[in-house]
Amino acid sequence: MQSFTEIAGGVTAPGSFVAGSLYAGIKAANASRPDIAVIASTVPAVAAGTFTTNKVKAAPVRVSQAHLRSAETHAIVANSGNANACTGVVGIEHAKRTVHAVASALGLRDRQVLVCSTGRIGVPLPIEKMEAALEAKLGTALGEEGSQAAAEAIMTSDTVFKEAAVELKLHGKRVRIGGIAKGAGMIDPNMATMLCFITTDAVIDKKLLQQALSEAVENSFNRITIDGDMSTNDTVLMLANSTAGHTPLAAGDREFARFQNALTHVATTLARMIVEDGEGVTKFVTIQVRGGRSRQDARKAAEAIANSVLAKCAWFGGDPNWGRIMDAIGYSSARIREEMIDIYFDGLITVKNGMAASTPFQKVVEVVAKPRFTITVDLHLGEAEHTVFTTDLSTRYVELNMGE
Amino acid sequence: MQSFTEIAGGVTAPGSFVAGSLYAGIKAANASRPDIAVIASTVPAVAAGTFTTNKVKAAPVRVSQAHLRSAETHAIVANSGNANACTGVVGIEHAKRTVHAVASALGLRDRQVLVCSTGRIGVPLPIEKMEAALEAKLGTALGEEGSQAAAEAIMTSDTVFKEAAVELKLHGKRVRIGGIAKGAGMIDPNMATMLCFITTDAVIDKKLLQQALSEAVENSFNRITIDGDMSTNDTVLMLANSTAGHTPLAAGDREFARFQNALTHVATTLARMIVEDGEGVTKFVTIQVRGGRSRQDARKAAEAIANSVLAKCAWFGGDPNWGRIMDAIGYSSARIREEMIDIYFDGLITVKNGMAASTPFQKVVEVVAKPRFTITVDLHLGEAEHTVFTTDLSTRYVELNMGE
Repeated sequence: MQSFTEIAGGVTAPGSFVAGSLYAGIKAANASRPDIAVIASTVPAVAAGTFTTNKVKAAPVRVSQAHLRSAETHAIVANSGNANACTGVVGIEHAKRTVHAVASALGLRDRQVLVCSTGRIGVPLPIEKMEAALEAKLGTALGEEGSQAAAEAIMTSDTVFKEAAVELKLHGKRVRIGGIAKGAGMIDPNMATMLCFITTDAVIDKKLLQQALSEAVENSFNRITIDGDMSTNDTVLMLANSTAGHTPLAAGDREFARFQNALTHVATTLARMIVEDGEGVTKFVTIQVRGGRSRQDARKAAEAIANSVLAKCAWFGGDPNWGRIMDAIGYSSARIREEMIDIYFDGLITVKNGMAASTPFQKVVEVVAKPRFTITVDLHLGEAEHTVFTTDLSTRYVELNMGE
Repeated sequence: MQSFTEIAGGVTAPGSFVAGSLYAGIKAANASRPDIAVIASTVPAVAAGTFTTNKVKAAPVRVSQAHLRSAETHAIVANSGNANACTGVVGIEHAKRTVHAVASALGLRDRQVLVCSTGRIGVPLPIEKMEAALEAKLGTALGEEGSQAAAEAIMTSDTVFKEAAVELKLHGKRVRIGGIAKGAGMIDPNMATMLCFITTDAVIDKKLLQQALSEAVENSFNRITIDGDMSTNDTVLMLANSTAGHTPLAAGDREFARFQNALTHVATTLARMIVEDGEGVTKFVTIQVRGGRSRQDARKAAEAIANSVLAKCAWFGGDPNWGRIMDAIGYSSARIREEMIDIYFDGLITVKNGMAASTPFQKVVEVVAKPRFTITVDLHLGEAEHTVFTTDLSTRYVELNMGE
């Protein structure tokens, strides 16, 4: 069924994309690590994006949302170490100056460049340093092998760089989709404190690309949660440059469906990498709710479980504690009937009709001892289902987040 | 302005109430500690109650909701060590048998007794042990000095027993209001995993008592949050036995307003005790949001801050991290304008117009180093305000909740 192949690489796997990183000195603590990533198409491309729904939006989010209206987009610039959020009009000016420095160096118009930032909130960007670095180094920083360098430059508390790519045939031509991402703490649906950049050489128009990206994000980044917080900077951007040269994709046709499938796979792979690299994470937990009266009901129940601080502490300690799961389902605002609920841990029935099932408790403890397990909840009220990916809450998580 | 006086004692401070505890062996781990509390009026009384809004409701919640329809109520029985939640029809039967054992021992009708449970979810009550203990010991367990014993018998992870009482004059007669409470983890508005029992000798009818209790709970227990979870068992019950002998209170009159004021004070005192005794708590934090366009907006913003895992970890570490507060306000769904927001730590302006204010950061760090501080957010969009009481999130909290 799977009509694509996973391949090595990230944003430079598709044809005619270059990427790279440079050092501007934004992060005081990691003074030698690159802190700016740039991704560019060497030919005209179209862009799509999804952004945080937080009402407090970082300056680069506002600038990128405006620039996304441009018919053509050539490049993305992203810095780590500073979120450029809660920085007022100065922040907007800094985001625009970052864009302008990239556009100047690459011979583009400002509106053909998108911009992202990640890091501490409320501190102005060291914009002069950034402009100087972009002017001096961007000309030689980009290359066809630059994906990993770009992925590393956007890392904050991430412990590993994150990239993924696939290859498939569309209308007889080889097409590639590749992406990089960052994000560790503060991960939530709608979306993670996370940046993700995806490229493709598929032939697709701007409107259809946006549709495909929105669908992929809904089924990947909007399904991951670590601590329920949602950042001011979350952004997913995608560029498509048509260099694969096939018949253009059209909404509703079979080749588009295959493209969508492959794109969602790249996004899901990156989203899972983010969860697994979450701050202080010791367990990767899949929460699957089925039997919901509506999709919204299934989603609310799944997210309440995934964000229950008490349930997450119990998983960290290897305690199944299904009472905390029942509790979370009960306050989730999903329509439920307590006496209809079944809960499974990796397929072992643990709760039947809202009460303890006969499975020996020790068997369930063995499941929760594993680094990855799935909790399935059947609400038995309908056909709707929803799945989210989450983690435990460890003492290490608290230590990592108690100060910077 | 304050028209009441704080006095020592709890539920037996008002006239003609008795209380006490007994040991039934419900808690395996604390085998010698009393685990059943009983409070009774020696004369007919009226009752009021507020209950968890969790759709998964413990059996005693369902039974007490039904028994609250009785015109007269004489007694409350509560056990710790077992929540009698997610226990199905057997759980309902056990709650009814608990009630019946108390009614038999005290010569009451079953429907004149209310019942509560707190502890682990999903395990049937050891009902035979409880019946045997109530039959053998209840006759001699109750006394006019029994409030503290009752308060101790309902403790679970609480480290201190909680009681409060006030005295005031109504229509020229001395009136008392007293209460006991328990609750530590899993505290949230609507309401805490918590039990609270309040008594008064005021002369008030059942309907007005319910109105007064609902108002007091709204301004106390529904304003506290530790970890955002909401329990299946949360219950506040109140008994009024009219033995003060004054002219009956009437809605809208000045004496009723003074009674309301005193009752809210007792409830608030107990609610604060619960937060301060929260599991692994090192900081007591008051979140005050003003300038909301509506009360709901102020409330949503306050609760989002109070439940932000990241903000709570920062407070534990002594880091003001106002970016995480802005972030929480942004995703709270309150109507806000980022550039209008001011944030104060104990009155020190830290954020002005959505950006860092000029107060030296070290001054703000000194505030967050204190065991108690207040964060005030001004949304500058209207006149509405709301206050909640919360805590930090410590490594000790995680350790305490990682298994039982």
